[in-house]
Amino acid sequence: MCISEISEFMKPVMFTRGVPPRESLPVDALADCAHQVILATGVDVLQYAPVAGYQPLREILAHQCGIPAERVLLGQGSLQILDILLHCLLRPGDEVAVEQPTYDRVLTLMRRAGLQIMPVPLQQDGLDIEKFEEELKNGRKIRLFYTIPDFQNPSGRVMTLGERRRLVALSQTYHFTIVEDAPYRALRYSGEEVTSIFDLSPQTIIQLSSFSKLISPGLRVGYALLPQDLIENVSEYAADTYINPSYVNHAIIYRFIINGYMQDHIAFLQAMYAGRLQAMLTALQRQLSGKCIWTQPQGGFFVGLWVDPALKEHVLSLNAEDYGLKLSDGRGFFVTGGEDFIRLPFCALQTDEIQVGIQRLSAMLTR
Amino acid sequence: MCISEISEFMKPVMFTRGVPPRESLPVDALADCAHQVILATGVDVLQYAPVAGYQPLREILAHQCGIPAERVLLGQGSLQILDILLHCLLRPGDEVAVEQPTYDRVLTLMRRAGLQIMPVPLQQDGLDIEKFEEELKNGRKIRLFYTIPDFQNPSGRVMTLGERRRLVALSQTYHFTIVEDAPYRALRYSGEEVTSIFDLSPQTIIQLSSFSKLISPGLRVGYALLPQDLIENVSEYAADTYINPSYVNHAIIYRFIINGYMQDHIAFLQAMYAGRLQAMLTALQRQLSGKCIWTQPQGGFFVGLWVDPALKEHVLSLNAEDYGLKLSDGRGFFVTGGEDFIRLPFCALQTDEIQVGIQRLSAMLTR
Repeated sequence: MCISEISEFMKPVMFTRGVPPRESLPVDALADCAHQVILATGVDVLQYAPVAGYQPLREILAHQCGIPAERVLLGQGSLQILDILLHCLLRPGDEVAVEQPTYDRVLTLMRRAGLQIMPVPLQQDGLDIEKFEEELKNGRKIRLFYTIPDFQNPSGRVMTLGERRRLVALSQTYHFTIVEDAPYRALRYSGEEVTSIFDLSPQTIIQLSSFSKLISPGLRVGYALLPQDLIENVSEYAADTYINPSYVNHAIIYRFIINGYMQDHIAFLQAMYAGRLQAMLTALQRQLSGKCIWTQPQGGFFVGLWVDPALKEHVLSLNAEDYGLKLSDGRGFFVTGGEDFIRLPFCALQTDEIQVGIQRLSAMLTR
Repeated sequence: MCISEISEFMKPVMFTRGVPPRESLPVDALADCAHQVILATGVDVLQYAPVAGYQPLREILAHQCGIPAERVLLGQGSLQILDILLHCLLRPGDEVAVEQPTYDRVLTLMRRAGLQIMPVPLQQDGLDIEKFEEELKNGRKIRLFYTIPDFQNPSGRVMTLGERRRLVALSQTYHFTIVEDAPYRALRYSGEEVTSIFDLSPQTIIQLSSFSKLISPGLRVGYALLPQDLIENVSEYAADTYINPSYVNHAIIYRFIINGYMQDHIAFLQAMYAGRLQAMLTALQRQLSGKCIWTQPQGGFFVGLWVDPALKEHVLSLNAEDYGLKLSDGRGFFVTGGEDFIRLPFCALQTDEIQVGIQRLSAMLTR
């Protein structure tokens, strides 16, 4: 049986979809929450409203973060808030820095906004913050550093407390803004939480987060914690873009929290995803030990894998679908390079799919 | 009793809010629709999804408009889709044309996108399309014409069929795009419907519309009917901005239509708003005849009023709140001028509030 015959009946393993699985969505609870909030507060949440979002949810988030509610901007997903921030804080031609690899959609937004992007290498053993500092010392003017410190997309890596502290110190010395994107932070399946960058300097850091990975991506509820001096400008830009976000969706999230579903739901997700992560790490160890290196995440959605540099041309020339796999092109997560990088999302796959997928990946890389 | 004493106990009449009234919102029906759609289709509508929006609602709209569903882009309100269109179709420095007065938020978006704006005067007796044509003949390069032909915001005026035809002919001769914004079109309380600009040239015109004025602004469901050659570019820009809009909200609207609520609800709105419009026109006739001119809308949300040019400095120097009124600054609807223009929204006011408001306006203008 040749490869093309195999591919005809093999259902491909989707290592492309960094999404929550269908079975994670709390459908019944959300149906009830939606019904309750619209009945109880319909004349408010169905109307035009202030741009910063549904006040009761702002207050819950503010309380959790120890800041005033006016510093919380609720939007329609956090990506769009980032787009607004890039336009409010920067001008075309300005230079920003990102971990490399980083979230591909953020690179797209930055390029679209006409920004120069400096990649700071992020390897399995950590962020190359020395290189970054050296460039700053040499006078390179960086206006903003975008980071996903917890269970990074696409690498799965957690920034150490030391790296976080050093980054904050650099931001103060060289006057750049840090945007901390934290959508995976609550999804830790083992190990100890690391202090957020926001908590290291809550007056200056912008934190973005979202309920997309914790409750539902379809509700499109993301938010920003903003420094006091940015609130007016960013809110006005948002109002000019979409008047106000959907309060209905904010209120559904609010009701989900108030009804007491949140804690149990996160525990349920953690238990489900922990098993899938373990299956991924075990399969990698069995199949690819010595041929690739990969991160050892304790949470989130992704394992990042670097193939042996000798194989990188080999990866690009292969058609993953012939091996029953769908893979994202690693180069999408890189400003330059990425031919040797593979992102492996595990949350939306059953453990047996993960095992089969990694077997196929091994077959592909070692044929 | 002096004016400042009056203002202390007068509840101001809000001639600022171009919004549906609280009593128009179909709260119970929407609560049921939300519950039904999430229970029945939660694993789809709560998930990430294709950017163009919830397919069943696209199909309904496409069927109504006689185009393929792929030409319907559902978004998060129509203002945001317009922002995306401005970025996809135009470059900073390009020139666009608008009716003057026009929707203030659109002027803001155009200025933000770095566009030059040519105002085409819209008076109570019609659009000065001769002036526009003359400029085109003289070689002025207009890339896009934005219009609200039905019950315009802020004037309430309906563009005649003759004007619509002439505009379409000009767009073909001089190669500019027409964006027809039609959120008020279904809200006609008397008289005969005029063919939409879209229906005059469905392959080339972009029509925007929304469920904000027909069902609920808070759901943020707007849409665009796009020419075939723009679909890919506009959809990609939208996906890069917000991944996908909230399918939950789209599906609630879909269910509202499928459950058969739409027709009765629009009839209910028409009956309620017709009485408020009549109260407005009657009060204007009684109080301001000979001192101002105003449009005679047969639908929509607004009456546009021009005060005698001799009074325009007078209008600007007055503090409406001293007379128990809240008024929008007319200049917001104009590229230049507008000192003599007042927008009078009537839908969110009770008939007695309208009568009192116009009495106060008369007192203010004739003191």
